Order: sequence, then structure tokens, then C-alpha cells
Amino acid sequence: MSSFEKLFSPNAIAIIGASQDLTRISGQPIQALRNSGYKGPVYLVNPRYKELHGMACYPAAKTIGKPCDLALIAVPAPSVADAVRDCGAAGIPFAIILTAGFREAGEEGRKLEADLARACKETGVRAIGPNCQGALSTQSRMWCVFGSVSEETGLTPGAVSCAFQSGGFGYAVVNLAEAQGIGFRNVVSTGNETDITMPELLSAMLDDPGTDLAFGYMEGTPNARALLALGQKSLENGKPVLIWKGAQTEVGTKAAASHTANMTGNYDLYRAAFRQSGLIETQDVEEIVDFAKVAAPKRWPKGRAIGVLSISGGSGVVFADRAVKEGLTLPSFSPETFKALRAIIPAFGAADNPADTTAAVINQPELFTKTLDIVLADPGIDQLSLLLASLPGAGALKCAQAITAAAAKTDKPVQVVWSGRKAKSEEAWKLFVDAGIPFLPTPARGAKAAATLARFAEDRRRLTPRKAPAVKMPAGYSLPSGGQTLSEVESKAVLKAFGIPMTKEVLVPSGADMMAATKGLKGPFAVKIVSRDIAHKTEAGGVKLGMAAADLGKARDEVIANGRAYKAGAKIDGVLVSEMASGLEALIGVVNDESFGPTVAFGLGGILTEILKDVTFRVAPFDLATAHDMIAELRAAKMFDSVRGKPASDKDALAKVLVDVSIMAAALGDRLKEMDINPIFVGAKGQGVAAADALVVLK
Amino acid sequence: MSSFEKLFSPNAIAIIGASQDLTRISGQPIQALRNSGYKGPVYLVNPRYKELHGMACYPAAKTIGKPCDLALIAVPAPSVADAVRDCGAAGIPFAIILTAGFREAGEEGRKLEADLARACKETGVRAIGPNCQGALSTQSRMWCVFGSVSEETGLTPGAVSCAFQSGGFGYAVVNLAEAQGIGFRNVVSTGNETDITMPELLSAMLDDPGTDLAFGYMEGTPNARALLALGQKSLENGKPVLIWKGAQTEVGTKAAASHTANMTGNYDLYRAAFRQSGLIETQDVEEIVDFAKVAAPKRWPKGRAIGVLSISGGSGVVFADRAVKEGLTLPSFSPETFKALRAIIPAFGAADNPADTTAAVINQPELFTKTLDIVLADPGIDQLSLLLASLPGAGALKCAQAITAAAAKTDKPVQVVWSGRKAKSEEAWKLFVDAGIPFLPTPARGAKAAATLARFAEDRRRLTPRKAPAVKMPAGYSLPSGGQTLSEVESKAVLKAFGIPMTKEVLVPSGADMMAATKGLKGPFAVKIVSRDIAHKTEAGGVKLGMAAADLGKARDEVIANGRAYKAGAKIDGVLVSEMASGLEALIGVVNDESFGPTVAFGLGGILTEILKDVTFRVAPFDLATAHDMIAELRAAKMFDSVRGKPASDKDALAKVLVDVSIMAAALGDRLKEMDINPIFVGAKGQGVAAADALVVLK
Repeated sequence: MSSFEKLFSPNAIAIIGASQDLTRISGQPIQALRNSGYKGPVYLVNPRYKELHGMACYPAAKTIGKPCDLALIAVPAPSVADAVRDCGAAGIPFAIILTAGFREAGEEGRKLEADLARACKETGVRAIGPNCQGALSTQSRMWCVFGSVSEETGLTPGAVSCAFQSGGFGYAVVNLAEAQGIGFRNVVSTGNETDITMPELLSAMLDDPGTDLAFGYMEGTPNARALLALGQKSLENGKPVLIWKGAQTEVGTKAAASHTANMTGNYDLYRAAFRQSGLIETQDVEEIVDFAKVAAPKRWPKGRAIGVLSISGGSGVVFADRAVKEGLTLPSFSPETFKALRAIIPAFGAADNPADTTAAVINQPELFTKTLDIVLADPGIDQLSLLLASLPGAGALKCAQAITAAAAKTDKPVQVVWSGRKAKSEEAWKLFVDAGIPFLPTPARGAKAAATLARFAEDRRRLTPRKAPAVKMPAGYSLPSGGQTLSEVESKAVLKAFGIPMTKEVLVPSGADMMAATKGLKGPFAVKIVSRDIAHKTEAGGVKLGMAAADLGKARDEVIANGRAYKAGAKIDGVLVSEMASGLEALIGVVNDESFGPTVAFGLGGILTEILKDVTFRVAPFDLATAHDMIAELRAAKMFDSVRGKPASDKDALAKVLVDVSIMAAALGDRLKEMDINPIFVGAKGQGVAAADALVVLK
Repeated sequence: MSSFEKLFSPNAIAIIGASQDLTRISGQPIQALRNSGYKGPVYLVNPRYKELHGMACYPAAKTIGKPCDLALIAVPAPSVADAVRDCGAAGIPFAIILTAGFREAGEEGRKLEADLARACKETGVRAIGPNCQGALSTQSRMWCVFGSVSEETGLTPGAVSCAFQSGGFGYAVVNLAEAQGIGFRNVVSTGNETDITMPELLSAMLDDPGTDLAFGYMEGTPNARALLALGQKSLENGKPVLIWKGAQTEVGTKAAASHTANMTGNYDLYRAAFRQSGLIETQDVEEIVDFAKVAAPKRWPKGRAIGVLSISGGSGVVFADRAVKEGLTLPSFSPETFKALRAIIPAFGAADNPADTTAAVINQPELFTKTLDIVLADPGIDQLSLLLASLPGAGALKCAQAITAAAAKTDKPVQVVWSGRKAKSEEAWKLFVDAGIPFLPTPARGAKAAATLARFAEDRRRLTPRKAPAVKMPAGYSLPSGGQTLSEVESKAVLKAFGIPMTKEVLVPSGADMMAATKGLKGPFAVKIVSRDIAHKTEAGGVKLGMAAADLGKARDEVIANGRAYKAGAKIDGVLVSEMASGLEALIGVVNDESFGPTVAFGLGGILTEILKDVTFRVAPFDLATAHDMIAELRAAKMFDSVRGKPASDKDALAKVLVDVSIMAAALGDRLKEMDINPIFVGAKGQGVAAADALVVLK
């Protein structure tokens, strides 16, 4: 992937379709680039003028004849592809296309968009848009935008870069976040993403040394699988990436369809991919603001334990409630820490975690600093939150001094929850900002942000070392050809080839000797009809369970007769006689998703999946640790433990099968439409698992 | 309950323990009352001075000799009870006690608090505190507080009253909410609540004509049952009450114990009581602010349907996602509405709900007004949200004018989501404020607030008409005396007296003729040991299921032998032979909670309760509609429908039993320690329910 540095710090900018009218979409960027203080040359391109706004105007980009990294394209939709070809001829590597009227505008637009995609491919020009509000960079003062943001050239610079599939919404987020103290680096409205997609763009943002954190609002992308590599890069670089996935619900999806015509995909899979790769899902502006603040010092807590010191007991209670719900722990302080705190904190305060120092301590800065040092030195504490309520004036300043001093002596994260009015606490406010101490307005928001910080740090430790397993077809194996639904026996043959264990069983053709065929199997038995033409065996009366050896012949006759009655002319291969497995009933499925490709679903049988939708997903292929994550994140995960008289289940064997299914899904790739193992029996620890039924549908 | 008007608008204020030093806790209120502009006389009381701060100083309140409604008490803890007695002698009806050092300070403090409680009772003086930060009222300029809030006499007046069990935290919430545009009426830090408790105080706040909405932060109250009446009053008066319950988690509870030493109780029961009574649970400041804004116009949506018009497609997507998750619906507009909108909204916008008018419409105010009128006239739409992103300047003003005009013509709620900068949109900002049009900063927050508004309005319709059933002991029935665990037969006798249906069964004593005794019952049977001394029958080997008639004698001998082996000397009454019931297994429990009194728990059997904790609660007694709410709010509620080949279950019979259990729990009152029906079988619709096992523990 090429770096996008020239997009964000172009040596010059060409405006193709530059307007005479500075209030028009094709005029606003000219004004914005003047106001922003962009230092490079701006070349206006419009064959209708020789001169425009006191500048030379070129008939085409290729006539500029000077180096130029970026073109802003604002010509009518039918001319956009040619404008890109013009950029190619001019040697301009990047384009931002504002023009609307592509796939969001029906059949004719779809054709234009296909031509635009071809133009990008032919020329190698990398393009943002079309149908977008543009992009800006506080690093280079590139301000190629229209709309209200074109007037916002005073936007605070900072280390947050972001991309939005909705310009209006995105710039509203930027506005709100800036008002709460966030500074921005590169900001892009991505529109239809005909060429550059959200994952690629966010990935490029992480390459920018001036970006510490990236945020994306997306309704969907055909390139969703690239999110996995994005997450991995985020973790490796220690640059968090937050994603807000719009179109989570049916109504939201309907709205998105008429909005950007993006492929919105399956929200459950997006969430799974976020968890799988370390991307951080977000759902509102405050979450983004708060996390950006606590992540800014780039201190990563070594675990989930947080220490809390408050000057208001209620704040400590509220913080603790939220922190625990978000996955943090508030362990008791070590005996040494407790003893040392007890000697400082007044008797009516609390010396254990969450401790309440009360305001008394704060009036003695040296005592308060000492308190902080003591807690930060506790090896059981990974980060520290100070809850200052709305402490004003001199008290706030004393706290700020003590906190700044203590934070400078540790590499543990230190955050402050404080709602003091800026006007009444100018000095404390400034000290926190200058020292880079994050402060958030409410205990609940502080707790949530600290938890997200701990989770990101944990994902760095847990997920970064993971490697997807090698994917290959088993030696000598070849899949049946053509698009078809395989019979149970054929389906199981596919699974067997990839090492997935089955119940012990034998295919007994209609006329064969039952006794001889089933020799070596132990009853009771399941008898199931085998026919490609009958996918729903139970519905067809094609299954009999718990049969004794003596009844197998009769059972075979019955299920075959039922199958014939269910579907006249069905080609029936015989019956499958299987040992009855026992254990916890689970199900494993594979879907070849339009955005993510092969994905694996896993859940427990019965009401848990059917009624409670307690199912978890991962993008295939994945490793054992990821498979164990899937098992652990079921709401009913405790079912695998020793409960209700049932011994603990064989999670290791189950995880191994999940990995093998993921390898199979990846190896079969586009040939596999869907696969279901339902049920798979999970035996007691050490007893393994056995797939009892399977269905493979090929493309 | 007496009105608290004199507390909040006192004709005069006595400060008992007034300090010479205005920076001390007993001095700060003197300064605050000067700064706040309180108009009535302030009487300083301190036997050490004749004159203080240029005012007469009285040796005791009873020597003031003039009418006085309120005393602020700031004397040392051992003198507080006498100060209250002094107030009684002086005819002062209300006191605010700032002094700390009561039950939060150990045994000695507990004694002082008991004496204080006696003093209040003897004198009839109603007291806030002790151990609190005081109270203030923007209505009367009463500012009896210490700490940073004593300097905040410029607090914006408004219609929100609130009470906090943590002063520091509470006033931080007030600060933050005010900065976001909320005005306040009466604000109280309640401290230990020795006399006046949170529910009584919030209820009194609802009586104040100047209060439109009340908010309380509480960690717990012994008087929790009073929350039910508070909720009912809130719904009847159309004045929402928001409660933030601190101490939701184990760690939070531990923190609260060292903070206020309040009885924190069972969070699940608090949540149930909120749902049961129409109180609104809240978890952060933004939720309070947002809901206070959308509730301020006192327009109650008639249903859950919301119409959405955006100028930014992404905002509509995000709003829709959150709205649906919070329980709103975004139905398609009526064909007439759609047709009319389609004619106005540009082709590249969206004319169905959520509609995207695009910015084009906004530049023609008459078209935008017309659009709003059309949607507001749609009978399928109960409220309207307008999403304006961060639209600045003239565009914002045009929108504001159109919205204000449209809102004036309807009684449906109209809200705006808008993050325009105030500095760039002064006129629009002012117009919205003056016209009382709520505007919130983000689509997600707007959606959540609108959903809470719809829920409050729905609770008004649904819950207000509900009447708790009459509670009485069945004629001629009397409970066994003494604290004891009853046997299954005795336990079932209690349930039978209250009309709860049982499996058909008979008690067969050890020597009795089994055949004769079980005549008229149909097998298969359950055989269970009957002994008060054996509460855990299964563990004792005292249960045999699925017995045929022929095996009953043997089964009886076995379970009795097992019982004897399990507990030597157990008094065994015989065995209970029951018909095996079938249906969905549920469980119903009663707990006599220390804060709420008798409460009923309900869940489905097996993993749903054990692993997933899918259990619901209500405070007893309650009516049929409430019982149906319990059934519907289980996560696995679909289990009662026709699923997995099982017919729909008899929800009506189940609800009837829940009501009868709630009547029983209330009638037995303190005599009932706990009760469990486990399992109760819920048959198919029309087939009724049958309790198969029961355990009653008396006090």
C-alpha cells in the first residue's frame, strides 16, 4: 500500500472545475485554501476561463506543466472519469472528487461510477469520493472541502485523524469533539469510496507520524476483511482505531441504503471483526472524546486493575459501579499501601480502593502528593483515577500540582475526573493541559474511558502475537464440482478431510445386510436417511433416534418410506447408522459473507441459539486462542464448566474443531456457500467432540 | 405528609452554631445567604456571642422570639439533638443539619444518631441531614450550604429539583447540568437521612408548583417501598422523577458502605421498583440533562412512533439505530405523507422515515415548514426529531424559524439535534430557547432522550390506572406459629389457602395402604419424602420421579430409608405421591427484603435462571397487568409462545398465580421469611399451571 502522504501534504493542488462563484461547491474550496493558509501553489483548471480569481486558469490538468500531488475534482458527474484520466496524464497521484450523481443516483450513475473505477485503475490515480464533502489537513493546511467545514479553517490542530461515510454527520462530530478539547490532524469525508475505502484510508492514517489515534464512521464496506489487518496495525503501532458502525438495525440499514447505497453487511460480523482485531467500537461522540483524551499520553495499563482516589464518596461509588460493569477491577490495596494511606487519610475518609481522601488532604499538597505516590507504587494497581468533583480555585490548583508531580514519576496512566468550571479554575485547567493529564467531566465517563484504555492495552498483549493458521487443501482432496447441496454423508466427507471428528457411523445402502454393516458399532443408534434431495431430514420423517440394534432394519425401512412419501422421486443412497453421541449440544456454521468472506458462527443448541440468539462469530481462518475467545464470550459460557451435575466440557477439543472449520472455510473459499454442523456434541474434558450432523452447500 | 414549602421558602432562617469565621462550615452559610439575596431575616444563634457579623446573636433558638421556619444546625455532633429540641421549643418546623459524626463514625455516632431521631420525633421538627452539605432554593434564595456550592449563588433558576446522598458528587452534577442549559429550583444534599428520606423529599418536591422534574442520587434507603408511591405520583402529576441508584455492583456497594453507611439493598429490586412505578433510572449526567430538556415542554407522545427529518443522511442512520435499540419505532410514513414529501424533497434525498430533506430544502423556509407540517400531521407519528448536524448561521436561523412555526401548530413533541456553535448561530440558538424547543447535541443522545420521553408517556397510560389488589388472609386460615421451615405438605397448605393450584397429590404416612391412598391419581408419579427436618429432599435421596403405580410401595420405603440415613432422628411424616406434571418449568420466589418488604421473583427453570440469571422481580402486592409485565420482560419470554414444536403456554394462569403469590406475600408480611415454588409447571394455553414443589420458611 502506497503512503498517502501526498494526499494530506500535497506540494500543490489543482482544482478541476474551478468556479467563478466562490459560494458554489466548486468555488468554496478556493476560498477555503486561501483562508486556511495553505502554502503550496493552487492551480485552477477550467477550459472556460484563461484567468480566474486573479490567477491563471488551465484548460486541463495536463497543461499545468508543474509538479502537483493532488487534484480536487468538482466537474459534473459525466465528466469525472475523464478528469481522473486528465490527472493521470498530468502525473497527479491523488484526487478528491466532490461531485455527486453516481451509484446513489440510480442506473445511469452506476454506469458512471463503473467508468470512474476503470479510470482510477487505468491511471493509478488514487481517489477519495465521489459524492463526498472533501478532506482537510491541519498539518499542511490542505482544506479541499465545501459546506460549513470550509469556513472552519480555525479547527484546532492535534493528533486525531478521522474519516466519515457521511460528511454532514462527520463534521458535526468534529465540531462537538473540538469543543470538548480534541485537536485534529487529517479529516476526510469518503463518500462512495469507489477507489479508496475506509479500511485503507484509516490504515494510511496510522502511517502518518502526526496521527496518534484514528476514528472512522462507516455504514459498510465491501472490503470489510481489510479491517482485520487494520486492527493488527493499530495494536502493533499503539495507535488506537475507533469505529462507529452505522446501520446496526433494520431501520438504520434501510436509511443507509437510501443514504450512501453502501453495502452495510451484517452488524454482528462487524462487531466480531472488531473484537477479533482490536478495533474499538464506539457509539457516540462523548466516547470518542473521552477515549482520545485518556489514550493521548500513550501510557498502556499492564492489567485491568484501577486505583481510585476521590474527594467525594459518591463519585467513588458511581465510578466503581461503572468501572466494574466495563470490565475493570478495583482490587483492595496491598496491606502496605492501605497502612500508609490510613496514616494520612482522615478517619472519616476511606483508605481502601476506591479511597476517599476527603477534601482535608487536598489542603496539604505534600500529603496529597504522597498519597498519590503510595497508590501508584502499589504493584496491584495498573492505572489511577482521581475524582475531584467540581473543586474550584486554589483547591483545584493544589490538586493539579500534586497530580502533575506524581504522574511525572510513574509510567502508569493517571486520569482525572473533574467538572470544575474553567472560569473559576484557570490555573488548574492550564496545568492539566500543559502536563498532558487527561481530565473528563463525570465519573461514569471516566470509568468507561479507563476501561477502554485497559482493553486496548490488553488487546495489544493478547492479539498482537496471534497468527492465523496456514490454509491449505488436504493432500489429495478435491471437492465435488458444481453448485449443489451435499448429502449428510458427502458433507461429512468434506469435514473429515479437514480433520473434524464425527460420531462413529456407517452408511448402509437400501439392500445391504444391516447386521454385517453395523458390526463394531455400539447402540443405541441414530438412523438417518441419506439423500441430497432431502436437506431437512427431520421434517421428512427421515430420522429415528435411540434405536436398539434389533430395530435397525425396521427403522431403515421406515425412514426410507417416509423420505419417498416426503419427496417423490428423491434419489436415496440408503441410511446412515450412527452411535448416539452425548454431551453438550453445540452448533458451528460457516457463511461466506459478501463483505467479510468466509466466517464461522458458533453457539449452543436449543433455546440459547433459537430464543436468546447467543451466537458468536469470527472471520476465518483463526487460531486456537481466538477459538477460545469465541467459547468464552457466549453469554452462557458457564455451561462449559462443571454445572448442574454435568462435568466440565472439553473446551480444548471444541476450540480445535473451530480452528479446523475456520481453515476449511478459508481453504474452500468461494466454493463454499454455507456449512452447518448441528449438533456437534461436546463431551466431558478429555472426551473430545463429535459432529453428529452436517450440511454443506457448494457454489 | 406535610408540605415542605416552609423548608424551601422559609420566612426566616436561624443559624444554630453560627461561627465568627465566615470560612468555616458554620460560617460559610452566613456569607452564602448574603450573596444569594435571601430576603427574610437571618438569626444567628450561639451562646458565646451577643453580637456577630454586625447582627444580634441569640443564646438559643427559643430566645429569638420571632417567627422562623428553618434552622441551619452546625453545632458539634453531641449537641445536635439538643439543638433540634431547641428548635422544637422555638416553634421552628424544619432543620438542616450539616454536622457530621453520626452513624458514619462508629458506635458512639450511632448512639448520637438514635438520640437525634428521638429528638425529631418528640418535637415534630422535620430535619434534613445530618452529615450533609445543605440545601438551597433558587425560588426563595435560601442558600443553607457549605463548600464550593456556597459560592455558586449565581446558579441558573429553573424547574428541576434534586436531592443527593452525596453532596460533593451532587453539586458536581448540578454544575455540569447547568453548563448544558439546565436551570434548578430546590437542591438538597440529604446526608444520613435520619428523619427525612429521599423518597419523602422527592415526593415533596413534586408538590412544589415550580418543580417540573425531580432527580435523586441515592445509594439506598430503608424506606424503599415508598418509591412506589413516588412513582405513581410522578405519573399522575406528569412530573418525571429520575433516580440514579449508586452501589449497583459489589465494589460500589462496599464503597457506599464506607461512604454514607446507607442500607444499599438489592439493585435488582430497585430496578424492578422503578419499572413497576414509572420512575426513570438514569446512569449519567448527560442522560439527565437531555431528558430534562425534552420533557420540559410537557408534551407526551401518544405512542412509540417517531418521525425523523435530517439534513445529513448519516445522522438519520445513527439516530434510527439508537432509537430502535431504545424501544422507539420509525414506521414508514403514510402514503399521503410520503407522496407530499416526495414532491418537496429533492430526488437525491429520502422521503420515507427517517427522511433526508438535504440542505436544499432548508434554503426555502416555506418548503421546510411545509415538510414539518406534513410529517406532524401524519397520524402514525407521535413525535418528531429534526437532525440539523452542525448547520451554522443563516441556514440554522431559517430552520429554527420553520421549526418554531411548525411546533406551535401541534401538540406533538418536537425536538432538534443540533451541534451548531453558539457563537456562529446566536439567533437560531436564542429562537430555540425562547420558543422552548429542546435541542440536543448528538443524534444518539437525541434518540435516547426521545425514547425515554415515549416510555414516560407510556408509563402514564399503562401504570397510572393500576391498583394493587386487596390483601387479606383467607377466611378461617391461620399460619403455623413460630420461626420454622415448613415441610412440603405444610408449605403447600399455605399456598393452597391463597388459591395457588398444585399438582394432584396425596400424603401417604409410613404405614398407610398405598393403593387405597393413591386411588384416583393417575401415574406416572413422583414420590417425595415429607419432613420438616429435610429441606433439601433431592440431596437426601428423598425424591423418586416417574414411578409406576406398582412401584409406589417400594419407592416409599426407599426414600424414607434414604431420609433416615441422611439425617438421623429426622421426624418423617410419610411420603407425598404426586401426579407428574408437564409443561414449561418455572420458579416463583418470595423474599422479605429489608428495604422493600415482601417481593416476588420469577424465572424459568434450568440454565435460564442458574446460568443466565434471567429472573424478574416486583414488589408485592401487584395486579395482573404487572404480572404480565414480569412474564414479558424475561429475556427468554418467547419460550411462552409456540416454539420448537411446543404449544403456547398458559400465560394467563401463570399471571394469576403471580398475583396470588404477591397477595400471599403481602398478607403474611413479616411472618414470611422466604418462599419458593420450584418448579411450577406452566401447561399449554387453557391448561393452567401446577406447583410441583414448595418451601415456606417462617419467621
